[in-house]
Amino acid sequence: MPEVLLEGERIDDLQRDGRKIIQHPGRFCFGMDAVLLSAYAKASAGDCVIDLCTGTGVIPILMESRYPGSTYLGVELQPESADMARRSVILNGCEDAIRILRGDVREYKEIARAGSADVVTVNPPYAKVQSGKQNAADAYSIARHEVCCTLSDVLRCAAYLLRSGGRFYMVHRPERLAEILSEMHAFRIEPKRMTLVYPRRDREPNIVLIEGLRDGAQGLRIARPFYIYDEKGQYTEEVRLIYDQN
Amino acid sequence: MPEVLLEGERIDDLQRDGRKIIQHPGRFCFGMDAVLLSAYAKASAGDCVIDLCTGTGVIPILMESRYPGSTYLGVELQPESADMARRSVILNGCEDAIRILRGDVREYKEIARAGSADVVTVNPPYAKVQSGKQNAADAYSIARHEVCCTLSDVLRCAAYLLRSGGRFYMVHRPERLAEILSEMHAFRIEPKRMTLVYPRRDREPNIVLIEGLRDGAQGLRIARPFYIYDEKGQYTEEVRLIYDQN
Repeated sequence: MPEVLLEGERIDDLQRDGRKIIQHPGRFCFGMDAVLLSAYAKASAGDCVIDLCTGTGVIPILMESRYPGSTYLGVELQPESADMARRSVILNGCEDAIRILRGDVREYKEIARAGSADVVTVNPPYAKVQSGKQNAADAYSIARHEVCCTLSDVLRCAAYLLRSGGRFYMVHRPERLAEILSEMHAFRIEPKRMTLVYPRRDREPNIVLIEGLRDGAQGLRIARPFYIYDEKGQYTEEVRLIYDQN
Repeated sequence: MPEVLLEGERIDDLQRDGRKIIQHPGRFCFGMDAVLLSAYAKASAGDCVIDLCTGTGVIPILMESRYPGSTYLGVELQPESADMARRSVILNGCEDAIRILRGDVREYKEIARAGSADVVTVNPPYAKVQSGKQNAADAYSIARHEVCCTLSDVLRCAAYLLRSGGRFYMVHRPERLAEILSEMHAFRIEPKRMTLVYPRRDREPNIVLIEGLRDGAQGLRIARPFYIYDEKGQYTEEVRLIYDQN
């Protein structure tokens, strides 16, 4: 289907359910963290799922294959990325289930009604903007650094969109865990479940997956460690399961 | 040395450096968490180390064998426990290095001067008081439940005692991690290092060890998982190392 591609773009296989995604090597491409989040998040039939900072739409496209009875809204700030995401939705024949919106999490009231989401997912920019250091507003920097969207911006938006009792799923960096947990609590998205992801058994974790409950009571469960590679440098069984038809 | 014991008390071997401790089976007895904290905390020669909620004094008694050049102050609310701790200090011949104070973390200005501690350690009561549920103020409940000392009380006291750049070491329950990290940040004891302790590989963690830095910058490092028992139900090598002369 070469007509769906603009110059420099390519179609990548998501290795799940025949799903594909349009990416541009010069822009931000999704990583293992997005794939992990799509498997960590849960949705029930009929749920309204909103994915913030959706980028190329990888999370709703993967989640819709896992939870086909829900409706998905992917919100992306950058028009070029939102356009790629829209074309990827069509490429996968998911137009009825997934809608892509060009929108800004800082203007959250324009995204959807307050309390209209059962589930919010987000793979936000991880890196703090160092004062006077990071001013570039190119596509890659916007996706990686908090140039246009801080952790607080994401949580404020999610707190607005989620109904009471709704679930929030985020992937982030463990080094920012203290801020993440305290800000979630401050925005009344109580951290309830957390998984630390380790590249290998002998390494420190480099990804954290978190589930929060809007208006939930305090009390966090931490899961067993999740390892990406085994001793032989191959994907562990738990990673391979994510790519299967589970 | 039976003359140091009151009725019902016993002397337990700490399995390190010949150290012993007086305990009373009817009161709160220390557990693996206190032993882990004593090995997790660090002190340099000349440091002033203050252990809050010291109970029978197990943490300063173990730490003094690991870091003999420091001076230690153990603070305990309950007079009977403080008395047992004092006698244990004498039993180990540590009177010059360890002092026990009957004191209340809520009246922190009476413990020591502001900024006089290089290191603060604490193994506080873990359990929240459920409204209308936990009113008992017996020795066991005071040590286990936040009857007389909440997490905020501990952190407010530690923030007062620590010099800028001083280190804070705490052992607690992972289910309260969100509160712990957010309150530490609020009291400007920035979480810098964390180890989750798992009873076994296939279980969720039940202990968390945390290091904070007074007035530190944000950024948390999470260590590899620490396991207590191996597949055969025996202590792991890393636990056995704690009981050795390291």
